Formats: sequence, C-alpha cells, structure tokens
Amino acid sequence: MSTGVRRRMGVEERRQQLIGVALELFSRRSPDEVSIDEIASAAGISRPLVYHYFPGKHSLYEAALKRAAEDLAGRFNEPHEGPLGARLLRVMRRFFDFVDEHGPGFSALMRGGPAVSADGIGAKDHVSATNALIDSVRQAAYEQMLSHLGVTDPSPRLELVVRSWISLAESTALIWLDGRRVPRGELEVQLVHDFAALAAVGALHDEETAALLHTMAGNEPADGPFAELVGRLMSLAS
Amino acid sequence: MSTGVRRRMGVEERRQQLIGVALELFSRRSPDEVSIDEIASAAGISRPLVYHYFPGKHSLYEAALKRAAEDLAGRFNEPHEGPLGARLLRVMRRFFDFVDEHGPGFSALMRGGPAVSADGIGAKDHVSATNALIDSVRQAAYEQMLSHLGVTDPSPRLELVVRSWISLAESTALIWLDGRRVPRGELEVQLVHDFAALAAVGALHDEETAALLHTMAGNEPADGPFAELVGRLMSLAS
Repeated sequence: MSTGVRRRMGVEERRQQLIGVALELFSRRSPDEVSIDEIASAAGISRPLVYHYFPGKHSLYEAALKRAAEDLAGRFNEPHEGPLGARLLRVMRRFFDFVDEHGPGFSALMRGGPAVSADGIGAKDHVSATNALIDSVRQAAYEQMLSHLGVTDPSPRLELVVRSWISLAESTALIWLDGRRVPRGELEVQLVHDFAALAAVGALHDEETAALLHTMAGNEPADGPFAELVGRLMSLAS
Repeated sequence: MSTGVRRRMGVEERRQQLIGVALELFSRRSPDEVSIDEIASAAGISRPLVYHYFPGKHSLYEAALKRAAEDLAGRFNEPHEGPLGARLLRVMRRFFDFVDEHGPGFSALMRGGPAVSADGIGAKDHVSATNALIDSVRQAAYEQMLSHLGVTDPSPRLELVVRSWISLAESTALIWLDGRRVPRGELEVQLVHDFAALAAVGALHDEETAALLHTMAGNEPADGPFAELVGRLMSLAS
C-alpha cells in the first residue's frame, strides 16, 4: 500500500532501475556527455549510491548496452508466416523503431566506439566487451535471416550476401540518423529491396543463392515489396 | 659511398623508417600483439631509441595508421576516362590489394576499434583520432565517387546510395578476410554489380538517381560489368 513514502528497492530491482534510467540517458545524448551525477539525479538517488551498485559509468554503460542489445535482438523475432518480403519489412520497421528511440547512443556506439571507456580503466576489456555485444546482435540477425530463408548451412556467397546486407542496414540507419533527410518509411522498404538486389547479384555467382531467389520470388504476392521491385526495375530497364 | 658502416639517419628519415616498419608489423598481425621491442628489433635500433622518436606504441600506431589511410585514399584516384563500370572495377582491385596487404591490421581496426589504446593513456583522444582518420578515408572515397558520377550536389537519396555502398565495400572486405572463402576477384566484380543494384533500388525512389542510372547505363559497353549484370538479371527474371 502506498503511504507516500518511497519504498525501499531490493538490490536487483535497484540495479535494473538504474540500468533503465542510464539507458534512456545514454540513448538520447552521446554517452560520453552523460555524467553519473545526472544518472543519480534521474534515478532519484545519491551519487555514492550509484557507485554502490555499479563501480563506474563504464560498467553501468555496459549493463545498459547489454539491455539494449537484448531488446534489439528480440525485435528480429518474426513469425515464419506469410511472404518473406512482408516479414522483412516488419523487421525493418522494428529495427528503425529501435534506432529512432536510441538515436544518439546508437550513433556514438556504432561510429565512435565506446568513448565511455575514456577513464582508461580496463579500456581494452571494455572495447572487447562492447564489440562482442555488437557481434552477438549481428549474429542474432544473421541466424534469424537464415531461418526465414530456410537455410541451415549456407554457401560462403550466401553467407556474405546476408551478412553484408545486415551491415548495409546498420550503415543505412547511421546515415539516416545524420540529418534524417530521407523518410524512414522509405528506407525500410529500400532495405527490403536492397536485400533482393544484393541476393540477385549474389545469384549471378552462386547456385544456392540463385535457387533461393527463385523460391523467394515464387512465393511473393503481386503487391509485395519484392514484386514491386521487379516490376519497377523492369520498367526502368526498358 | 657505402663503407659497410650503418649510416646515421636524420630525425625525420628515422621517424619515417619506424613508421614503415611498424605499419608492416601492424598489418600482418593484430596490432595489440605487436610490441615495441619487436618494432625496435625489426628497425634495427634499441627500444629506448624508439621512444626517443615516439612517446609510445600508441603514437607510433597512429602515425602508421595515418600513412595507411593516405595510401588507401590514394588508391581511389582513378582517371575520368572510359566507362564507369570499368573504372569502378579498377578501384575495387586496388582496394582489395590494400585489404590483402594489410589484412589483420585492417580487420582489427575496423572490427575491434583501436585496441592499441589499451594502455589507457589518452584512450579517448586515440579513439577520436582513429575514427577521424577512418572517416577521412570514407569521405575521400565518397568524393571520388561523386566526381566520377559527375555530381557535385547529390540528393539525400543519392548520397545515401553512395555512402552505403562504400560501407558495403568495407564490410564485404572484412567478411572476405574472415576465411577468404570467396575468390577476391569475384568480390571485386560483385561490388561493382552491387553499386549498380543499390543505385537501381535508389532510382525507384529518387529522380536524380534514376537519371544518373540512365546515363551510366547508356555509356556502358556491351562487355562491361554493368551490361553483364543487366543481361544476367534479365535471364534470371525470365
């Protein structure tokens, strides 16, 4: 029952609250501009109490990053139902939602590397931990894509197509964040088209990719993003 | 005249020699595995003398990186002659030459960030300096591309197409380095095709990109990489 008195939080609950507060601050501004004082103030606790739960900004940043990574990886989950183009488009929407919510933090992380390690304590371990986290999200995206493509053991070329498209989605999001001069809805569709386009180029050199593209194209409805792409490319070429 | 006695080098000459030796070592293995002792030994001088020219591995790494960046940016220079597809292909060859020569160092830099800042001294400045250098190379690539496309003030969409293709070239090279399971010659051609494919997708949404694609296609010979792409995509689609 609420008595107007602030309830004491348990250790884990307080840690989770701090991570949430920190993630929000680290998302909205470049993480190296966020101070522990600000985090303490936003969480409504004292600076020493923050240090009681996290030895430094560093470890709080890592915990926030871990939560963001889990959040992002979760957004790649998409039911294996309906045409692939529409599935990909839904995933791209959720990806841009994430990028939109975490803009400055996402940019700082992907562009600049973790400047939060500026205190120099264990900077190298921090860089490794951060990169391992980024790689784990990329790997989750890669595995989701393979499962939607119905492939378990891809050819090197198909692996390259999927992985390089994932990196294209990252860089497209980063370029978008820098000024937001193209509507994000268009970029979500564009990235679905880009996947088909990169797969088509890959198909020129690799039978497995060609077979896959053939199956994909066969299952697409006439009003889906893939069919739209083919139609418009044909009219462009003529 | 050679007398068999080692000639004394001037300060700048010695610095340049050390940078060259360091770059070679940093290129062949992950930079954080290379010690100052090794650099000293490869340069044929004492460890303290290395420190006389460079305050630490850190600053030597940065100097080596700067030379590598200038080298790479130089390889983007391509005469404005002949069809665009063939020009791009020559640039991709030189890019993969560079990646091939500097494999482990290139991977460590682009994947892991500068682990050489592990000593924690000025780690943040080091990260900034390294990223500024990487960005300057990307910018050089971008400006070269625009000049070959004959564009000075691109639409946001065209800028996105060019910048995201540059990042695709980076990630393709990184994925290639991890096992080299696709012949690099095929990837060089693939990246030229990828550019055309991404530009075609961009053209669906943007008039400037469409007009550019039209001009590009009109200037391509029947045996160039762009014509090959269109022909093969057509047969794939039918």
